[in-house]
Amino acid sequence: MTTQKEPQKELSDPGKSSGPNSWSRVTCPCCISSHIEPLVLIQLAENVQHITKQWIMSTISAPGKNGGAQLLVHPGEDMKGDMIVVAAPRCTLLRVTEDLGLCKTYQDGNMTTFSYDDKDSFLNIDNMQQFLTLAERQFIVKYELDSMRALEDQRIPGIPAPKGKLKARESILQRLEKVGVIRNVTPLHDQKKLTALGKEWYSHKSLWGQPLDGIQAYFGGTIAYYFSFLDFYTLSLFPPAILGLFITFFLPSANFSANKTAESAQPKDDDDPVSSYMVQAVFSMIWSTVFMELWKRRSATLAYRWGTFNLAEQFQEPRPGFRGELGTNPVTGRLEPLFPDWKRKLRMGLVSVPVVGVFLGLVVLGMTGFYFFERLMSGWHKAYNSYFTAVLLYFPSIAHIVYTNMLGNVYRNVALKLTEAENHREESSFDYHHTTKVLVFTFFNNFAVLFHIAFFKEDIPLLRKRLSSLLIVTQLVGQFTEVVVPYLVDRFVTSSERNLKEDDPEVDHLQAQGNLPAFPGLFAEYIELLVQFGYLSLFSCVYPLTAPLLLLNNLTEIRTDAYKLCKLFNKPFSAPVANMGVWQPAFEVLSFISVMSNCWLLLLSPRVRDLTQDAGFSSVQVLVIAVIVEHALIALKMILAFIIPDEPDWVQIKREQIEYNSMQALKKQRIKRVNVGDALQTKTKI
Amino acid sequence: MTTQKEPQKELSDPGKSSGPNSWSRVTCPCCISSHIEPLVLIQLAENVQHITKQWIMSTISAPGKNGGAQLLVHPGEDMKGDMIVVAAPRCTLLRVTEDLGLCKTYQDGNMTTFSYDDKDSFLNIDNMQQFLTLAERQFIVKYELDSMRALEDQRIPGIPAPKGKLKARESILQRLEKVGVIRNVTPLHDQKKLTALGKEWYSHKSLWGQPLDGIQAYFGGTIAYYFSFLDFYTLSLFPPAILGLFITFFLPSANFSANKTAESAQPKDDDDPVSSYMVQAVFSMIWSTVFMELWKRRSATLAYRWGTFNLAEQFQEPRPGFRGELGTNPVTGRLEPLFPDWKRKLRMGLVSVPVVGVFLGLVVLGMTGFYFFERLMSGWHKAYNSYFTAVLLYFPSIAHIVYTNMLGNVYRNVALKLTEAENHREESSFDYHHTTKVLVFTFFNNFAVLFHIAFFKEDIPLLRKRLSSLLIVTQLVGQFTEVVVPYLVDRFVTSSERNLKEDDPEVDHLQAQGNLPAFPGLFAEYIELLVQFGYLSLFSCVYPLTAPLLLLNNLTEIRTDAYKLCKLFNKPFSAPVANMGVWQPAFEVLSFISVMSNCWLLLLSPRVRDLTQDAGFSSVQVLVIAVIVEHALIALKMILAFIIPDEPDWVQIKREQIEYNSMQALKKQRIKRVNVGDALQTKTKI
Repeated sequence: MTTQKEPQKELSDPGKSSGPNSWSRVTCPCCISSHIEPLVLIQLAENVQHITKQWIMSTISAPGKNGGAQLLVHPGEDMKGDMIVVAAPRCTLLRVTEDLGLCKTYQDGNMTTFSYDDKDSFLNIDNMQQFLTLAERQFIVKYELDSMRALEDQRIPGIPAPKGKLKARESILQRLEKVGVIRNVTPLHDQKKLTALGKEWYSHKSLWGQPLDGIQAYFGGTIAYYFSFLDFYTLSLFPPAILGLFITFFLPSANFSANKTAESAQPKDDDDPVSSYMVQAVFSMIWSTVFMELWKRRSATLAYRWGTFNLAEQFQEPRPGFRGELGTNPVTGRLEPLFPDWKRKLRMGLVSVPVVGVFLGLVVLGMTGFYFFERLMSGWHKAYNSYFTAVLLYFPSIAHIVYTNMLGNVYRNVALKLTEAENHREESSFDYHHTTKVLVFTFFNNFAVLFHIAFFKEDIPLLRKRLSSLLIVTQLVGQFTEVVVPYLVDRFVTSSERNLKEDDPEVDHLQAQGNLPAFPGLFAEYIELLVQFGYLSLFSCVYPLTAPLLLLNNLTEIRTDAYKLCKLFNKPFSAPVANMGVWQPAFEVLSFISVMSNCWLLLLSPRVRDLTQDAGFSSVQVLVIAVIVEHALIALKMILAFIIPDEPDWVQIKREQIEYNSMQALKKQRIKRVNVGDALQTKTKI
Repeated sequence: MTTQKEPQKELSDPGKSSGPNSWSRVTCPCCISSHIEPLVLIQLAENVQHITKQWIMSTISAPGKNGGAQLLVHPGEDMKGDMIVVAAPRCTLLRVTEDLGLCKTYQDGNMTTFSYDDKDSFLNIDNMQQFLTLAERQFIVKYELDSMRALEDQRIPGIPAPKGKLKARESILQRLEKVGVIRNVTPLHDQKKLTALGKEWYSHKSLWGQPLDGIQAYFGGTIAYYFSFLDFYTLSLFPPAILGLFITFFLPSANFSANKTAESAQPKDDDDPVSSYMVQAVFSMIWSTVFMELWKRRSATLAYRWGTFNLAEQFQEPRPGFRGELGTNPVTGRLEPLFPDWKRKLRMGLVSVPVVGVFLGLVVLGMTGFYFFERLMSGWHKAYNSYFTAVLLYFPSIAHIVYTNMLGNVYRNVALKLTEAENHREESSFDYHHTTKVLVFTFFNNFAVLFHIAFFKEDIPLLRKRLSSLLIVTQLVGQFTEVVVPYLVDRFVTSSERNLKEDDPEVDHLQAQGNLPAFPGLFAEYIELLVQFGYLSLFSCVYPLTAPLLLLNNLTEIRTDAYKLCKLFNKPFSAPVANMGVWQPAFEVLSFISVMSNCWLLLLSPRVRDLTQDAGFSSVQVLVIAVIVEHALIALKMILAFIIPDEPDWVQIKREQIEYNSMQALKKQRIKRVNVGDALQTKTKI
């Protein structure tokens, strides 16, 4: 495990030619290439000893059988020596491409699962910059770094014993991060490409269109899926927006608009306001179903286009944090930690679910307490009407906000710990369960009050007021804190710092990249969309301007999100994925709940009530009718979802082709397999 | 296409050695075997010309490339010459085994998809009687007979022009059956095996246990699945039966039993009868969910055990009735008729669904008319009280029965025609849609009245009376007509005929087999179970003795069904299948509806009503509570179904192994593939 250095190799980017110039060499015949492209930056703590850095570098460049990552490293060459720049040789890139199960264009023009042995049949195989996207190359480096494991119990040089001790099969990168030796691992930006992408993306003048393929290539799968979904969702908002505007401005009796008084007790004329109400509710149910089904098809198309429709995560190495007894994976035959599924399920059922339930209970408790104290305080204030009681009036709100925030913080930690204890094997499965936990809580927090107003207080005007203020105020505040503040910070604080040390542009460039704040992930972005979608599909019949407002918001959101991602944060790693993960079912569940919500909202609206009473129905009869309508609509929704296929025909054919070919190949291959060591049963000739 | 005859080959069954002794020979090196086992009997019309019979025989024995079936035929040798006995050479059996995607035991002990090229690695490959079950061998013969197609426009010798004309790619067997040349194609019984199986199955003394593997081997997949399900279902009936008995006999206040008066208006004491009601309802919901989930696991296990868990019907030849423009299948690359999926969906959506809807409407119309006229007649009778009006009193019932029967008959034809027009490619898909259509109608017919009584008339005592009479009377009548009548017919009518011509025991034996009535299929059997399951899960809380009665019925049902199948009908063909097809979702949907039904029944029960009114709830409040409870229970049901995995862990691992190995094999195989004729894109070397 010695680091071999090589004199003077050209970098791929001529602009960086003054930078790192001594690369470790991987002993591999295919890796003699004229291009070495720096892909990932590892930032070390400032006080890291030279021997530790040397050990890290040698481990990264060591071959896989020695527990290394088979990557190329460069010491960074700045004064402080707290950087390592990592690149990847061709053979590592290709090997991991196969491990991940990525599909690439085959010589016959089809997307085909990549195979290392058959590499020469794929297009662009000789140019890694064309064969793999930048994001894929960087993700592969990250994948390899994550898979570095100690082969036996050993010590990290330069770090005292308890912290520096590695157990056999422990993830090296995780330990180094935990110990504080590695501060940060970030993919490097390619300024030229970034500028080009930005021009197409957020600086262009036209209202519509995002360079989705460009985003996928530069930022990677998860991020490209987010923007594709945002794109598709915004486009889908046009029909409800038009309907909402029409109802608001052209139906005289449906005066739900925000600028009128919210009290709807005095209908101006005898026009039927219920009809617009009902049109809106039924439309919103059908719309949300069709929208989700069409998105699934779009999603499948994108997965084919981006070569991720055949990922086989269950056949990959387990994620770094996965623990278990060492054993042979029954499927792949590889040596790896094993953890029985029933144990995981037991932990989920007996620990995670009850704990999450308790926290949801605490949310309800907080809300109940808030209402209780509010009533109490206003009672006191009415009774005594002193300054003291006037101040006390604010107490419940403040206490509730503090309580909710504290609860949220505690919950975030608990959710992470719970998911870690569940010990998921795949990264995606970990994300799935972690996100679900946070999601349920956040959703509950957001909508509990609205549901309470709608179905317990049955106060539709208040619901309308609340909804419009939420839509307008929170969106404005959100945009402001998300973009304007970071922009100002970036513009005035960071750039002044940047100006202080303009001595070595290359090193400084690397340094600057590492110093931006870490990208906070897509959770906040998705949850914003989900909450929006919730407002729209759950309550839109109460406030028809929801859709136009959301449309307006999203058209700016696309740009601000893009700007933020390109300029204000470190570039994040982003795995190749075949869909938007847990957010898909989250949106579907919401669209399911919306059927029920709309039905009951319709029923509760005072006008519908008046109308049914005028028509001579008893409340029980109305309720029974509502139940029947609800069930019929749910059935309709399920039938609709069943009829619209989840993927376009041509994607299905491609998938079946692969399945068929694999089946055929398996049959053919078995013949050639030499069965060594198999307990051959003697065949009985009769 | 000449028939080559071979002098004197021994039959597999020594008892039949006096029988057919000249077999056609297939020119194939592997088929020189000492055993030729007669598998299938083709019965021709009595007036068929010799030249036609010769042509049929030569076609059956011709190789596949000449449009033949590659089977062995024997002319039957009775006086009338109206039989053809078919056997299968080893190579045909093995080739079709691969086509069907059957799994067999590999040399390493795992069930593995059979591959012809790798045949020597499978156990028992040298003995077809051990390698394939009798049912599989017979199904393969049927599969090959079905796949005989005219290669070009031609005439069947001995049949006049319009009828005897075959179009290119037309199914030969279908045409021969349509023209009336072929009366019947039946698999032959193996009397020894049948006797042995019967002994284990219906003649044994113990109450429990069926030889499921034996049934699968002798009768084949679909039938084995039916009996496995019947077995599992009967076993699952024990818990609800015990609960039902307990409630009936040990809870004094819950006097729902049939022998008491059905009117429940006078509760004897103040004990809480509602609790037993609720226990029953909640139990029945949970039971039906858990039962279905566990059956899925059992079903997956059976599919693995019987080698059908990896069937690939979409990669097989299309079913004989499939029409379409000739083209290349995009997945398998084979030349076959193609029919676009969207056309099928269009036909289903625009024709099938509305037509079925109209028929369901007619059922409701009939029911409404029945109630209307009944009321009218009893009004008249009260008013005039003459003999004439007394006779008229019977008119509505009789008219309704006649109407329902006619409607049912018309519908059966319409359903078949509709499904044929939908033009499904796979046999299973055809069955699925055909069965669904008939099922929906039958189910509606059976339950519409009960639902009407329960939810419109809200007459629980009447529901209880109706349910108990249905359970007791129809089951008794069913058993009688299903078994006793055929048994008597068999015993006295058929056997006396049999005695008339005892001259040639072998020929007579074959003749006798063909002369039994055709097995009517499993539809009636399954629908009986489904309706049972419906009574139990939908309405059982009304009549707790349902489960014990059903248990009693099923314990005899197993035996009578077995006897019927073995003795009273021709042996049916039965395809290897991986589950019980459309019946699986049918039971699941029913168990879903049961949640709603139980909730509303609970609500409607007069005692619950009294109780809630005593407790001071308004009817609206009760209804709201019921809605909430219903939604919560549905959520619980879905969670339960989600948590219990559909297949046991070990089956999942086996499946993943196959998937992984296929993936690996595909990668390996591509390298070896020589790309002939592919439009090779020239690779750009950079």
